[in-house]
Amino acid sequence: MSTVGKTITCKAAVAWEAAKELSIEDIEVAPPKAHEVRIQIYYTGVCHTDAYTLSGKDPEGGFPVVLGHEGAGIVESVGEGVTNVKPGDHVVALYTPECKECKFCKSGKTNLCGKIRATQGKGVMPDGTSRFRARGKDLLHFMGTSTFSQYTVVADISVVAVQPEAPMDRTCLLGCGITTGYGAARITAKVSEGDSIAIFGAGCVGLSVIQGAVANKAGRIIVVDVNPGKEEWARKFGATDFVNPNELKGQSIVERLIEMTDGGCDYTFDCTGNVNVMRAALEACHKGWGESIIIGVAAAGQEISTRPFQLVTGRVWKGCAFGGVKGRTQLPGLVSDYLDGALKVDEFITHRKTLPQINDAFEVMKSGDCIRAVVDMRDLSA
Amino acid sequence: MSTVGKTITCKAAVAWEAAKELSIEDIEVAPPKAHEVRIQIYYTGVCHTDAYTLSGKDPEGGFPVVLGHEGAGIVESVGEGVTNVKPGDHVVALYTPECKECKFCKSGKTNLCGKIRATQGKGVMPDGTSRFRARGKDLLHFMGTSTFSQYTVVADISVVAVQPEAPMDRTCLLGCGITTGYGAARITAKVSEGDSIAIFGAGCVGLSVIQGAVANKAGRIIVVDVNPGKEEWARKFGATDFVNPNELKGQSIVERLIEMTDGGCDYTFDCTGNVNVMRAALEACHKGWGESIIIGVAAAGQEISTRPFQLVTGRVWKGCAFGGVKGRTQLPGLVSDYLDGALKVDEFITHRKTLPQINDAFEVMKSGDCIRAVVDMRDLSA
Repeated sequence: MSTVGKTITCKAAVAWEAAKELSIEDIEVAPPKAHEVRIQIYYTGVCHTDAYTLSGKDPEGGFPVVLGHEGAGIVESVGEGVTNVKPGDHVVALYTPECKECKFCKSGKTNLCGKIRATQGKGVMPDGTSRFRARGKDLLHFMGTSTFSQYTVVADISVVAVQPEAPMDRTCLLGCGITTGYGAARITAKVSEGDSIAIFGAGCVGLSVIQGAVANKAGRIIVVDVNPGKEEWARKFGATDFVNPNELKGQSIVERLIEMTDGGCDYTFDCTGNVNVMRAALEACHKGWGESIIIGVAAAGQEISTRPFQLVTGRVWKGCAFGGVKGRTQLPGLVSDYLDGALKVDEFITHRKTLPQINDAFEVMKSGDCIRAVVDMRDLSA
Repeated sequence: MSTVGKTITCKAAVAWEAAKELSIEDIEVAPPKAHEVRIQIYYTGVCHTDAYTLSGKDPEGGFPVVLGHEGAGIVESVGEGVTNVKPGDHVVALYTPECKECKFCKSGKTNLCGKIRATQGKGVMPDGTSRFRARGKDLLHFMGTSTFSQYTVVADISVVAVQPEAPMDRTCLLGCGITTGYGAARITAKVSEGDSIAIFGAGCVGLSVIQGAVANKAGRIIVVDVNPGKEEWARKFGATDFVNPNELKGQSIVERLIEMTDGGCDYTFDCTGNVNVMRAALEACHKGWGESIIIGVAAAGQEISTRPFQLVTGRVWKGCAFGGVKGRTQLPGLVSDYLDGALKVDEFITHRKTLPQINDAFEVMKSGDCIRAVVDMRDLSA
């Protein structure tokens, strides 16, 4: 029996309030309105951003909410006027939408589409309402994606169809971390052949920066992490060097990197969200041209600082979201890279969980040996 | 009688100690050694950087010293191996040298030549010694130029020959402020046609940023200054708007600029050296692509700060020294722009002083109606 046009009742992991575990609930998912798409989510990753909002520290985070933003699935139905995807398409949800019409999309200078920014930030669909209800209450959407539900509704500009031969437990990870790191190196920084780069933090994002740097033929790829267990990971992905700042005797990480690279790095990447690390990453850049790219998300209210001399002498401080990748235009290319063997994805999956085990996925993420936990949204075994 | 190979005794303004007036002294200027050039300085500008070091607040500033870095003159003699200039050449001294051989010069990415950086910073010639003596004491050099002396000695990479038809009381100003601003807009920022830009501080540098923006056909050129007298100056140089932050009722300068430009500026320039202004300049940039360029020199120990979110959402923070201009390669082009009428220089000269009046030049610089005071180094009238 077709579900098109009807409300679907399914399971979802609901965050009722901050700093509490997610609760598996029966949730009603309304049909998509005009320019909306309802997706059956097959797999979702769990990312630090979900944990950050769940913790209650995100000043923009509202409750109750359906979190999740690294999701892949199949289009169940589309609302009026949707032309970019159709039922049956294998898709990845995009928390950074791409309308191709707004000032930002047309600029050719950024992937930060502005079209639904205001409503997405408020946790509602572009018409100002929610498609989710549970226990008689409307639930907020999250990052325009809400992939912690078996079915979700997103704006049509927040979804891209990808090659169906790519397994969805892999493509879901292209919805955030991997794309963010890979794009930061290739699209935001545009690393060049022979460049020396340093990457602070060897999680999913940092390891993907390595991959982007390898693809662009960087020379020296130095990974910095306080967890010695990350060295093996870093080298597996192509790092040439690994530095543990805690093991430097009487030398700062900035001094060590400048020494290792004869003056500083061509590009550095912060994948930690720690504002002190962001400063070190900037100051480890080469005078005259080194660029530091902030990828990590800092806690609310925290600020970065440095002496302006660092910039006057030619270092550049920038950042990116979603790696600077335009989701609808560029994500299929990353899937091709994956299918061609040029972009590692499988290796990131260190843990697999069922939907009822989703809180475990948050737990393992805090441990150093987890890169990504993928949740099978159709598996309800506990 | 030729002075070649001999020590020249001449007049110079010597800074014996911090925070004291300069003293006009008889000074001995030794002949140039290998790869050095002795220049008879005809005219010098007085810049805030000279005042900063004289104040004693510059942690790298040593005494006694011959200050001055905006100088034009004629080559008196050259040391062994000098090929880029010859006696009789009209020249401009370059505090940012260009060796064309070091890692920096060869990179094609920066004008920050590294060849003599260490000795220049210490106030000595590349061989580690001084060419200046007065009252039996060696005097330090300053910024590799020391233009407050009737004769000075500089490294050959710190001087460029320019068109002799350009009057030296004008070309001296291309040794710092005008070039810094003009270059910041055209070389560092590469302002594009139609761009909206904001310039904080309408002194010599800021007014020159306007000129660079006009040359590159910027659309909106907004000048921000707390001195209402600067509006006339700004408009004369091509500003389309003038905003006095002190006259905004209940609105911050960042809010006003974002409102005026429908989302923020494509480029902003700090020409104040005030770290709070630097932050405002960054935050007034357009999300997604706006770039803020720090030109002003902050006081020692001061730091800039912002929320990393500003960068993650696509703003870029950078800076430049000497506008990113490669002195030996590019300064003659600026002189051509001046001779062709495309670059205003004459208009900057609001005050003229003789060498004995040089302390007056420092005084008038503190007043709001001075853009540049030019000192005639050959005029000894009081």
